[in-house]
Amino acid sequence: MSTIYLDWAATAPPDPETIEEHARVAAGAFGNPSSDHAAGKAARELLQSARIRAARHLGARPEQVIFTSCGTESNNIVMLSLLLRKRTGSVVVSGIEHPSVFEPARLLAEMGFAVRFVPAERNGIVSPDRLLQAVDETTLLVALMYVNNETGAIQPVREVATLLAERARTGGRPIHLHSDCVQALGKLPVDCSALGLDSASFSGHKLGAPRGCGLLYLKRPLVPLYRGGGQESDLRPGTENLPAICATALAIERHAAAAGAEGRARAADLKGLLIERIGSIEGHRFIPPEVETEPERYSPFILNVAFPPMPGEVLVRLMNDRGYAISTGSACSARKQKHLRVLQAMGVDHDLAFSAIRVSTGYTTTRAEIEAFSADLARAVASLPAPARR
Amino acid sequence: MSTIYLDWAATAPPDPETIEEHARVAAGAFGNPSSDHAAGKAARELLQSARIRAARHLGARPEQVIFTSCGTESNNIVMLSLLLRKRTGSVVVSGIEHPSVFEPARLLAEMGFAVRFVPAERNGIVSPDRLLQAVDETTLLVALMYVNNETGAIQPVREVATLLAERARTGGRPIHLHSDCVQALGKLPVDCSALGLDSASFSGHKLGAPRGCGLLYLKRPLVPLYRGGGQESDLRPGTENLPAICATALAIERHAAAAGAEGRARAADLKGLLIERIGSIEGHRFIPPEVETEPERYSPFILNVAFPPMPGEVLVRLMNDRGYAISTGSACSARKQKHLRVLQAMGVDHDLAFSAIRVSTGYTTTRAEIEAFSADLARAVASLPAPARR
Repeated sequence: MSTIYLDWAATAPPDPETIEEHARVAAGAFGNPSSDHAAGKAARELLQSARIRAARHLGARPEQVIFTSCGTESNNIVMLSLLLRKRTGSVVVSGIEHPSVFEPARLLAEMGFAVRFVPAERNGIVSPDRLLQAVDETTLLVALMYVNNETGAIQPVREVATLLAERARTGGRPIHLHSDCVQALGKLPVDCSALGLDSASFSGHKLGAPRGCGLLYLKRPLVPLYRGGGQESDLRPGTENLPAICATALAIERHAAAAGAEGRARAADLKGLLIERIGSIEGHRFIPPEVETEPERYSPFILNVAFPPMPGEVLVRLMNDRGYAISTGSACSARKQKHLRVLQAMGVDHDLAFSAIRVSTGYTTTRAEIEAFSADLARAVASLPAPARR
Repeated sequence: MSTIYLDWAATAPPDPETIEEHARVAAGAFGNPSSDHAAGKAARELLQSARIRAARHLGARPEQVIFTSCGTESNNIVMLSLLLRKRTGSVVVSGIEHPSVFEPARLLAEMGFAVRFVPAERNGIVSPDRLLQAVDETTLLVALMYVNNETGAIQPVREVATLLAERARTGGRPIHLHSDCVQALGKLPVDCSALGLDSASFSGHKLGAPRGCGLLYLKRPLVPLYRGGGQESDLRPGTENLPAICATALAIERHAAAAGAEGRARAADLKGLLIERIGSIEGHRFIPPEVETEPERYSPFILNVAFPPMPGEVLVRLMNDRGYAISTGSACSARKQKHLRVLQAMGVDHDLAFSAIRVSTGYTTTRAEIEAFSADLARAVASLPAPARR
């Protein structure tokens, strides 16, 4: 039985062209980019070319793009560089962040920083005003993701940047604004400079590149924790993973750039169909309900829905048995049920959060797959004994 | 002109079978190992199988093997976990460590730890007694690499482990012994348990796997800095790079396990030839000279030699122009001349260190390549104007 993959927010299925690019670079440009010989120089040139190509689509100058091993590492580099500050201070983080921002923030709290988690509104969107209210004179950093990985809610990153800039203009100390853009790239236009970000994180494998390459946009260099041979302008030590870097640059070009607008329109069409079909299944609850009424505020690639009191986990398994890959939420927390944290931070009660499933699509998803999925979902829901459905 | 690659200590040329394995896994097992569906489960099983296969050849239990993104990250995870200790203390580090141990140690010093760098003896080997003399009641960690990446000198890791264990038995506090084994794996038998290590670092790309996977042996779990979705038993967050992990497990099986003894014998034969040929070039200086008289104390895959006062950098370029890839030292420091630090830490004076070149071989290197290299090296040295040769 072949699987219909609807868990693109966890990781994208392989794009054969990026796999080919990866193998080509692994075999053909194996030199260490730090080496002085011809093989090293060839690798160095490919590295720089990949940096220029990636930067072009991120609203960044090439020297502002750092290649890391993954989005999680990019987030940690920024968050934990605060540990090297002479003084602690406060840190303002949205309550709906991915674990790779949320957990470093908790570590900062353990290490003496005043960390304030600001919940989202019930529509899954963080209020810029509430975020700014948590900022004080000691605030060093604000973190707000661009697209939430559980609900697809698009966050007001640009508005927050504007408010922080105004604050700095009227005498406040400059505050670093970091945005986890892992679920945004390829789904929204991402222009780091126009958004007013100080730093942003991205991941190649969410775009169809093989694993091994994340990106970090840094408006200005910072002082990272991890140290070594000075690679990536001393910001990310370790021999550069050139095959993954070149594959990721290609994935950005193929799936985040030119294809962007067209891809979003396709995704919006699929999501509309999904909402229509699921909307006719008894007992459905979209999370948040606004995905139906204000679709433009949510990524067209992600839909969160619940059939309470059926546990999301059960529905994921039932659908898996029918040949569909979906999830209860972030793969990075699904197996520990920590995804409840994100939904609860937008006011969803525990029982509803416990029932949530996430359906996420990508550039190869078809209407036929959505139709088949919706029909089987209706059957799975109907198959449950009445008490479970209440 | 095809290049003869003699810089294997920087990175190994691609092994076609591991590249194929990488592509196969990237295409065929793309699921996120944290996902609950069939694609996730298949990925999780491959991940565990790779862990078991790697552990078998490292003298480790599977749960003691953590997959990271590179050797540099493995070293940083161990070194910088000290930053989370409630109290600082002293740290004893050999002076000949790779930058990915040396630079984190310098950061620890900045953060209030008493860091003691213990130089090597003139033969490039650290004295266990001198290392132990630097240990005191506050010592938290000792770091000593297994095979030095510049000279190939094999370090007395097991002896140090024994001395530390004796110290603990007679009432001293237990001290963590970390060993950077990146240049050891595939070159010496590495049995982490038998060596008495608390932690050890490894790198896939030094063994012929594509980039993207390092390993960290941890006798017992520690508390790492970077945080996220709980992957790798909470020790290394971020979606697991399964293609690189599987390719690395294969590389370990192919080049570090069964092939080990035979490969070392081949390498020793090539190094003997290299020493014989280079030994007949006027003005050569082996670093250290003991590589000729006590060859068993040095990795057969690495040879360091100088033709003072010719700068190593010039010789690397001359040989590059003749079609050979060699280096002045660690690629991670070559472009910044920081490699002088390691040689100077074994008592080599600045001028001699400045002239050093490193020749490193691997499993595809042939006698014919060594013969050709040696002959061209002799010509390159002879081609220099007399004043430069003195």
